[in-house]
Amino acid sequence: MRLIECVPNVSEGRRADVVAAPVQAIRSVDGVRVLDASSDPAHNRSVFTMAGDAGPLKAAIVALVGAAAARIDLRTQTGEHPRLGAVDVVPFVPIDGVTMADCVALAKDTAAEVATRFDIPVFLYEDAASSPSRRNLEDIRRGEFEGLAAKMTSPEWAPDFGPPRPHPSAGAIVIGARMPLIAFNINLATDRLDVAKKIASAIRHSSGGFRFVKAMGIALEDRGIVQVSINLTNYEKTPMHRVFDAVRREAERYGVAVLESEIIGLTPQAALVSAAEHYLQLARFSSAQILENRLRDS
Amino acid sequence: MRLIECVPNVSEGRRADVVAAPVQAIRSVDGVRVLDASSDPAHNRSVFTMAGDAGPLKAAIVALVGAAAARIDLRTQTGEHPRLGAVDVVPFVPIDGVTMADCVALAKDTAAEVATRFDIPVFLYEDAASSPSRRNLEDIRRGEFEGLAAKMTSPEWAPDFGPPRPHPSAGAIVIGARMPLIAFNINLATDRLDVAKKIASAIRHSSGGFRFVKAMGIALEDRGIVQVSINLTNYEKTPMHRVFDAVRREAERYGVAVLESEIIGLTPQAALVSAAEHYLQLARFSSAQILENRLRDS
Repeated sequence: MRLIECVPNVSEGRRADVVAAPVQAIRSVDGVRVLDASSDPAHNRSVFTMAGDAGPLKAAIVALVGAAAARIDLRTQTGEHPRLGAVDVVPFVPIDGVTMADCVALAKDTAAEVATRFDIPVFLYEDAASSPSRRNLEDIRRGEFEGLAAKMTSPEWAPDFGPPRPHPSAGAIVIGARMPLIAFNINLATDRLDVAKKIASAIRHSSGGFRFVKAMGIALEDRGIVQVSINLTNYEKTPMHRVFDAVRREAERYGVAVLESEIIGLTPQAALVSAAEHYLQLARFSSAQILENRLRDS
Repeated sequence: MRLIECVPNVSEGRRADVVAAPVQAIRSVDGVRVLDASSDPAHNRSVFTMAGDAGPLKAAIVALVGAAAARIDLRTQTGEHPRLGAVDVVPFVPIDGVTMADCVALAKDTAAEVATRFDIPVFLYEDAASSPSRRNLEDIRRGEFEGLAAKMTSPEWAPDFGPPRPHPSAGAIVIGARMPLIAFNINLATDRLDVAKKIASAIRHSSGGFRFVKAMGIALEDRGIVQVSINLTNYEKTPMHRVFDAVRREAERYGVAVLESEIIGLTPQAALVSAAEHYLQLARFSSAQILENRLRDS
């Protein structure tokens, strides 16, 4: 099985009929499964989660851009969430039987097709980025749609595909490839917020910790405890067990115990299997030994 | 998804055309996937692994018994493996979305149908057994086909379904329900066989250890190390992590470290996820949070 996840973000979360069009567009593509569609009126944004192989996903994104760009005009769109385009961001995420390189190739292929067909500029980001300054979505999106025309006059912000100026109503699209993100929180058996903040600081990349960890310390007021709230942006290179053990050791230094951890939302199977392999010291294990995988692939 | 595994054992492993007939019979049933078919000429026995929901599996076993009983005559069959019937053993194993009670019901339902249709006596075993003395396959099979007619004259060995005597050529069938079995070996960083044997003795049920552990200590001559070789017969009630930690602690008592562990063959996903949950102290986790499961069920 070759399985890629794709999570397009569209800049419309209020008008049901406008949201329905791109959903209908992706649902109509054979080989694409739509797992989730959620709209946020305050953000005026919708996020669709779908999965499939490269060919069907590319077709689905082309259909989605056609449906969304025809109905969303950023000149009149407002909302809390920053955005650059009618279709704002399209990440491809490797799940099973595909590499990151496959997803980067798919991102570029899709970007070229969309830019040509709809005359919309496309920027590549994350693992598909054409330079380090374009890896972060926030850097590309800074200034938003309203500042885009001026931003694109700089050679530094020439698009990777398409015309050297925003589409009048649909702006630009950011397309890329990234690892699945795991929201992994670790709750401490204490109400000392300073301890959670110190541990978050110790493990996160921005202050000297693990390369693929974003973290902050927060209070869970209703439970009288604190939490190290973690985003793991690459569970293969910075695995859950390493982060968990580091948090436990840091907490011990303050005389604090780990109460529990939790995963919010979805996680790839491999992230959990990798933890089991680590702690059980499993050697020579293959995911093909998991009965459900064997059944699925047979 | 409702998923049950079924692993029928047939008393023919030499004549390819005779083995082909029951394989063809189960393959022809819609909703059944045949994952494996392997024959052992010395044992004169074939083992088929298939999966599906209850209805299709019942139909497949009825078809398989029809095909096998018409071609295998135990009066002339010989081989190293003990056997009671042309179709010897049929275990149903709960994998996903089904309970053990579902598999017990399926075993009884299939047993009744097979006994009536083919006039073959059926004994129920393991979780489907009608009394504790019939739980173990070895007890039911003791005396084999050759001793079966005499054995069945005792009221203690009246069949659960079908006639009170063996079928002339097809003998009897043992049908039941059991948990998936995990072959889980733990290798020690030592060549001291006595240590492996003492640890095996400490953890196995028969000598005072965990309820669902069978274990023995063996030497891996070519690697110069020893192994605690383990069969886990119920990973839900005796989980891998508990056995692993016990082996590690027992080994420490002899100044020996665990080198690695290994899983031979297949394991249900849940056994690994349960280990990850334990060591990461995961709270409120559901298997529906595993991306692959979500994709499969969507």
